[in-house]
Amino acid sequence: MGISVQHQRVAVGGIQQDPAQAYASVRTASRSLVDGLSDADATVQSMDDASPVKWHLAHTTWFFETFILLPFAAGYEVFDEHFGFLFNSYYDAVGDRQPRPRRGMLTRPSLTRVLDYRDRVDEAMQLLLRSAASPAVLERIELGIHHEQQHQELLLTDLLHLFAQNPLLPAYRPAPVPVPGPPGVAGAGWHAVPGGIAEVGAGSEGFAFDSERPRHPVLLQPFRLATRPVLNGEWLAFMQDGGYTSPALWLADGWDRALEEGWTAPLYWRARDTEWLTMTLRGLQSVDPGAPVCHVSYFEADAFARWAGKRLPTEFEWERAAANHPVAGNFVDSGRLMPVRPLAADAGFVALFGDVWEWTASDFAPYPRFRPLAGGLGEYNGKFMHGQRVLRGGSCVTPAGHVRASYRNFFQPEKRWQFTGLRLAEDS
Amino acid sequence: MGISVQHQRVAVGGIQQDPAQAYASVRTASRSLVDGLSDADATVQSMDDASPVKWHLAHTTWFFETFILLPFAAGYEVFDEHFGFLFNSYYDAVGDRQPRPRRGMLTRPSLTRVLDYRDRVDEAMQLLLRSAASPAVLERIELGIHHEQQHQELLLTDLLHLFAQNPLLPAYRPAPVPVPGPPGVAGAGWHAVPGGIAEVGAGSEGFAFDSERPRHPVLLQPFRLATRPVLNGEWLAFMQDGGYTSPALWLADGWDRALEEGWTAPLYWRARDTEWLTMTLRGLQSVDPGAPVCHVSYFEADAFARWAGKRLPTEFEWERAAANHPVAGNFVDSGRLMPVRPLAADAGFVALFGDVWEWTASDFAPYPRFRPLAGGLGEYNGKFMHGQRVLRGGSCVTPAGHVRASYRNFFQPEKRWQFTGLRLAEDS
Amino acid sequence: MGISVQHQRVAVGGIQQDPAQAYASVRTASRSLVDGLSDADATVQSMDDASPVKWHLAHTTWFFETFILLPFAAGYEVFDEHFGFLFNSYYDAVGDRQPRPRRGMLTRPSLTRVLDYRDRVDEAMQLLLRSAASPAVLERIELGIHHEQQHQELLLTDLLHLFAQNPLLPAYRPAPVPVPGPPGVAGAGWHAVPGGIAEVGAGSEGFAFDSERPRHPVLLQPFRLATRPVLNGEWLAFMQDGGYTSPALWLADGWDRALEEGWTAPLYWRARDTEWLTMTLRGLQSVDPGAPVCHVSYFEADAFARWAGKRLPTEFEWERAAANHPVAGNFVDSGRLMPVRPLAADAGFVALFGDVWEWTASDFAPYPRFRPLAGGLGEYNGKFMHGQRVLRGGSCVTPAGHVRASYRNFFQPEKRWQFTGLRLAEDS
Amino acid sequence: MGISVQHQRVAVGGIQQDPAQAYASVRTASRSLVDGLSDADATVQSMDDASPVKWHLAHTTWFFETFILLPFAAGYEVFDEHFGFLFNSYYDAVGDRQPRPRRGMLTRPSLTRVLDYRDRVDEAMQLLLRSAASPAVLERIELGIHHEQQHQELLLTDLLHLFAQNPLLPAYRPAPVPVPGPPGVAGAGWHAVPGGIAEVGAGSEGFAFDSERPRHPVLLQPFRLATRPVLNGEWLAFMQDGGYTSPALWLADGWDRALEEGWTAPLYWRARDTEWLTMTLRGLQSVDPGAPVCHVSYFEADAFARWAGKRLPTEFEWERAAANHPVAGNFVDSGRLMPVRPLAADAGFVALFGDVWEWTASDFAPYPRFRPLAGGLGEYNGKFMHGQRVLRGGSCVTPAGHVRASYRNFFQPEKRWQFTGLRLAEDS
Repeated sequence: MGISVQHQRVAVGGIQQDPAQAYASVRTASRSLVDGLSDADATVQSMDDASPVKWHLAHTTWFFETFILLPFAAGYEVFDEHFGFLFNSYYDAVGDRQPRPRRGMLTRPSLTRVLDYRDRVDEAMQLLLRSAASPAVLERIELGIHHEQQHQELLLTDLLHLFAQNPLLPAYRPAPVPVPGPPGVAGAGWHAVPGGIAEVGAGSEGFAFDSERPRHPVLLQPFRLATRPVLNGEWLAFMQDGGYTSPALWLADGWDRALEEGWTAPLYWRARDTEWLTMTLRGLQSVDPGAPVCHVSYFEADAFARWAGKRLPTEFEWERAAANHPVAGNFVDSGRLMPVRPLAADAGFVALFGDVWEWTASDFAPYPRFRPLAGGLGEYNGKFMHGQRVLRGGSCVTPAGHVRASYRNFFQPEKRWQFTGLRLAEDS
Repeated sequence: MGISVQHQRVAVGGIQQDPAQAYASVRTASRSLVDGLSDADATVQSMDDASPVKWHLAHTTWFFETFILLPFAAGYEVFDEHFGFLFNSYYDAVGDRQPRPRRGMLTRPSLTRVLDYRDRVDEAMQLLLRSAASPAVLERIELGIHHEQQHQELLLTDLLHLFAQNPLLPAYRPAPVPVPGPPGVAGAGWHAVPGGIAEVGAGSEGFAFDSERPRHPVLLQPFRLATRPVLNGEWLAFMQDGGYTSPALWLADGWDRALEEGWTAPLYWRARDTEWLTMTLRGLQSVDPGAPVCHVSYFEADAFARWAGKRLPTEFEWERAAANHPVAGNFVDSGRLMPVRPLAADAGFVALFGDVWEWTASDFAPYPRFRPLAGGLGEYNGKFMHGQRVLRGGSCVTPAGHVRASYRNFFQPEKRWQFTGLRLAEDS
Repeated sequence: MGISVQHQRVAVGGIQQDPAQAYASVRTASRSLVDGLSDADATVQSMDDASPVKWHLAHTTWFFETFILLPFAAGYEVFDEHFGFLFNSYYDAVGDRQPRPRRGMLTRPSLTRVLDYRDRVDEAMQLLLRSAASPAVLERIELGIHHEQQHQELLLTDLLHLFAQNPLLPAYRPAPVPVPGPPGVAGAGWHAVPGGIAEVGAGSEGFAFDSERPRHPVLLQPFRLATRPVLNGEWLAFMQDGGYTSPALWLADGWDRALEEGWTAPLYWRARDTEWLTMTLRGLQSVDPGAPVCHVSYFEADAFARWAGKRLPTEFEWERAAANHPVAGNFVDSGRLMPVRPLAADAGFVALFGDVWEWTASDFAPYPRFRPLAGGLGEYNGKFMHGQRVLRGGSCVTPAGHVRASYRNFFQPEKRWQFTGLRLAEDS
Repeated sequence: MGISVQHQRVAVGGIQQDPAQAYASVRTASRSLVDGLSDADATVQSMDDASPVKWHLAHTTWFFETFILLPFAAGYEVFDEHFGFLFNSYYDAVGDRQPRPRRGMLTRPSLTRVLDYRDRVDEAMQLLLRSAASPAVLERIELGIHHEQQHQELLLTDLLHLFAQNPLLPAYRPAPVPVPGPPGVAGAGWHAVPGGIAEVGAGSEGFAFDSERPRHPVLLQPFRLATRPVLNGEWLAFMQDGGYTSPALWLADGWDRALEEGWTAPLYWRARDTEWLTMTLRGLQSVDPGAPVCHVSYFEADAFARWAGKRLPTEFEWERAAANHPVAGNFVDSGRLMPVRPLAADAGFVALFGDVWEWTASDFAPYPRFRPLAGGLGEYNGKFMHGQRVLRGGSCVTPAGHVRASYRNFFQPEKRWQFTGLRLAEDS
């Protein structure tokens, strides 16, 4: 995390903040996500990839307890000796754990007890923060804050998946107020970027995950990046043109997967009469042709790009284009909870940040001279650097201030339940 | 159901009762089973074979709504149009349904709403019962009552499985008061039964499931039946003698299954230091060598019998021996919720009824001239008459009064989560 | 095997024969089955259930070597020390073995070497047979002869499956000479059998497998058995009437399997234009509406019977009806290698023996007081007495003289690659 | 393929050759690989990833027939109309095909008939080659020649896998003559390469696959590459140091796979007493500590590198280091058929080419401005550009002259049956 922690400040959203305040703020935000959810809603696991809401709340708390309170808060006593087993995610160095596909078996502890766990840890954390915490400790807290933000996004993403399995199609939040905007699908423009050597990755100042470092030069060819993401209306044209039935458009692995799982549209779409609807955090909604397409896999994004005669950008092309661009857009804080039709361009780009994570053509690989964090936290990112594609830009369920131009999200190319879309590129 | 319904009475536990009272009594009993359970406890499905607690409560209610209120209660309006889809179990004739392995996705409706559903249906049922219901309607209600009793047992059985998946090993009810009794394992006696033609199956009077009928003669060879079920202490001897590692003792399919699933003891047993413990509805308990062994598959029961130089009885041998024997024992109404050490023999038998379901050597097959119920209810038993073994006698989670000497329970031979044990037989 | 071996004779086809001659005859018959097959044809395994042709030839030889030559032929030296591992089928007591699903990996030893193995064992067997072999040895040889006959049938059955996987649809033998016969589908008659106590199973004289013994009384209700098996023409009517799309006709397990494997017709049928064809040992042939239906599972047979308003007979009903009926019909010795249209009735029955194995409603269970063979051979039948249905009567690839009225074949209810059909029954 | 075809010459092994001679030479080489194999050896498929020997021989022939003779040889008639279905590998544009996992069902056509197919196609090809073939046709023939060389390697690789499944462990060729060499494991040296912009990929002249083009600049950091591959002796040290039991050394996906498949040593190793043996094309041999380790997955190679405190090179680092290095080494033409202990260094490197394919850290991705071949051949490489790692340098079963410094082989990271090893790198 380099020297992000300065003068007893932690960096969140690129801003140096008072640590106690930053901590309280992120914890409160997590807590508010479960408003209106029942104990059962918070307990069930809808598939192996997803985790229960309750588990996210407890795991992020366990993270602070394990990596900060136990080593650094003198006299802290563990809240419940079983929670280490229950809420460790994947840290082999820390010990055994509940197998991931069985996280949904935990009807006990209840949501209430998990919230008690949070209160108890928050109390101890505030005590620690009020003491003169060392930069090393503050760095870990800073990491814990960003870790919790990641799980806020996952919590909502996993909850949508759960509700989409229920024939009642429950809405997490009320139906949206219609967003005014141009009808139909506007053409995308192209933003030309010259080739040459570009610096990518996070510099040594400010917070960034280990996988974003070190900053290093890459050599780029000249290219053009679309000014906006691909929209639902364009996706419908792809579908109508046989996009899901033409193997020539697809990677071989993608085609196999599409057949196996019977893909014919984005994950949550369903046809009713002549209309396409989509399940959202605000219940079943009409598909808006002017909004960015969401919940498509890398394989689908790649096939779409081939159909369009374009390609996906590499992560470095994306980062090069996004550098110096303000990190603003439709994040979770907008309260929309779904991608919305692009309204205005900023410096030539629409929705570069927010709305949907954008699949890139890049394998999630270590940067030259990458060094994982020391100790157990070294498992944070490094051991997942295989078989995943980098995504950039954040989504409508990402906390504002969480992402950066250098931020690297990553998922396996067949996954569809994240808020994932795409933006096209081409050689120039 | 023949002529079980007489003079406006329904038969439960072999006794003609007032229908409204009988209905209210069984419904109240179901309701009391969820005391102390959370919404989450009632929602999660621990495996494909098991159903959520909430689902059992709703499905039995749907049964009354679908098969009695809708056809027979004038003006009854369905409580929720979605519930037919959600809570149909397997009646193809009634319509589509939530796939069985996905019953645990239903965090909505909540437990509270399911209890409301019960209240509403109970109200309409009482109204119908207070009118002069026809014998045909009373017969269906009688079936619904027995159906609900079956699900009371399944509810507890499935709940134990769920709690056993939780590393916290929660107890459904407090630890038991120790049962006094003889220490160690007493030898079993043998009850000789002469051969000849015996009548088996339910006669035309009183309630019985279609699969118990018609009553018909069978030809038996002389045999002996053990006076008590096999005990934990005997099972330990089997284990110590290599019972789980000697293929010669096992059916080929059983041996394959044992290897595949790594069986080394009954389902819920776990070794701690030198002691064997077992998960129960009353939490983790010591294995009592004097109590009947429970949660073993047919394959294990069959291997044990071969090891002991005996065999399992056929279902007709069992029924012949049990005929005229009082239907008394450790049922759910005893409140013990687990098999206990046999104390006293009755007419030469100990625990013939209650404690554990006893695997028999018999395939679950239709009786000669078997006729399934008419209409949708014809799917109740008939279509499962394949690949299952008959069990007899009821268990410690069976409602008192639910079983009879002619009662046929059935499960696939590899299943272990039911309260299943065995009693030995031999040729004489 | 009781006292089948008398005066130095062995029983094959119900006739007491000179053992050396009987041995030579069955071994020559096996050898002639591979005429025209290549080394590759004899080596490939088309699925886990099937074995390579070469494996059948070697395994039957290993049986004589292991159970007769090694214990009883002084000075016999094992042909190849590896063959015990390669060609043991399932005798745990004998030792480890090549896993069944990997029998097709054995491109070595070649077919030629397996034939050498046969020659060498035959030579030693003839030497032993020319000496005064004890009755105990003769009994084992007799078992080995019947065992080899079973594998002759399996060899052809498995070969048909292999050739059916090949898009070239190779014919094992040339296309058949047309069999004259009545056009269309003749109605079946019904043969009434009175109820009462009947003796079933093999008596103590003559050869029979252990599973056919002991002979014992059973109690039957009066019933009627169809005079002929179900024909292809009738099966087509079942198909046209929605037989494969009506869950109400099916056992629950059968319906699940039918959906899972996409059953829409008997195993080897395929539609071409408006015609149904079927793969046979004589290549692709038109489906003859007047010939018995073949290659259907128990689940399909059971659904057909329900559709027809009838039922399958129990194995004891079948045996009772077949007793005293001559064991004649279309066996492998007819050279037809496929079921043919029934021509003439004999004592009221057509094709009771031969053409197709007939599924019965009976679970393959031990007879009262069943005792498996002693030693390793005790694994011959007993350990498979679970999850299988009994079939009766033999097929067009069964060696003449191999079956009896008491003969019990058995397969899992979902299997379709055997030459299996059905005959209807009804209560009278 | 750019302008590799000049003056009626094709490039094989970097040399411009007479096309007819080059064609004859590669076809004869394939033919000689089956010397000593039986029809059965050539027919069986040992796993989904592998193909039968016969299939390789037929598929390469189908390639010439489909892509050259049918479009360009006037009057050519297809040898067998079924072969298009049987021997198409994965060209969706060409038509339907035998599913890959069922290639081993084809006992017909026989090996002999496949050889006849080869003769007939060779005859037609020579006729075409003697005419004045256009450069476009010559380019396709050139591709067909390199395609056939790829399948020569696969044929031997797949055959070894098949023979390794056979408990007899048959040897394809006689045991090797011992290679003299230094005892023990010599330390590796390091070859330093400066950073900067390097040109990688194949230029426009000479033959190369589409995936090697276009040549383009990449930016490299300074690094060091080991002078020799990792040796068996070093791998033993890794094993003894807990390499296969330490999750911290592994990528998460790799660790899961290692547990799932029970990896404890390279694929064909087996322990006998205190010695390690390995299955090879020359039968079971002692593991030579001085020879390069072979048959390890990317996941194992990556874990080894982490254990050694080094890393795998990227494909561009490898190519940069190998540029201008002579393409010489232990290829299939040496007749050794297994990796051997390195003897002499050349220009600082030992066994850079030949012996074992070397895993690199690079995802198999398209080069900037990559264009697949036109038409059906566009499926040759492009659609596999996902989920695979690049390997460099060729192996002991690669035909001499087939590889280049720019040659990119690729396999999924869990595959072990190819002749795959590794060479370490480090930052400098």
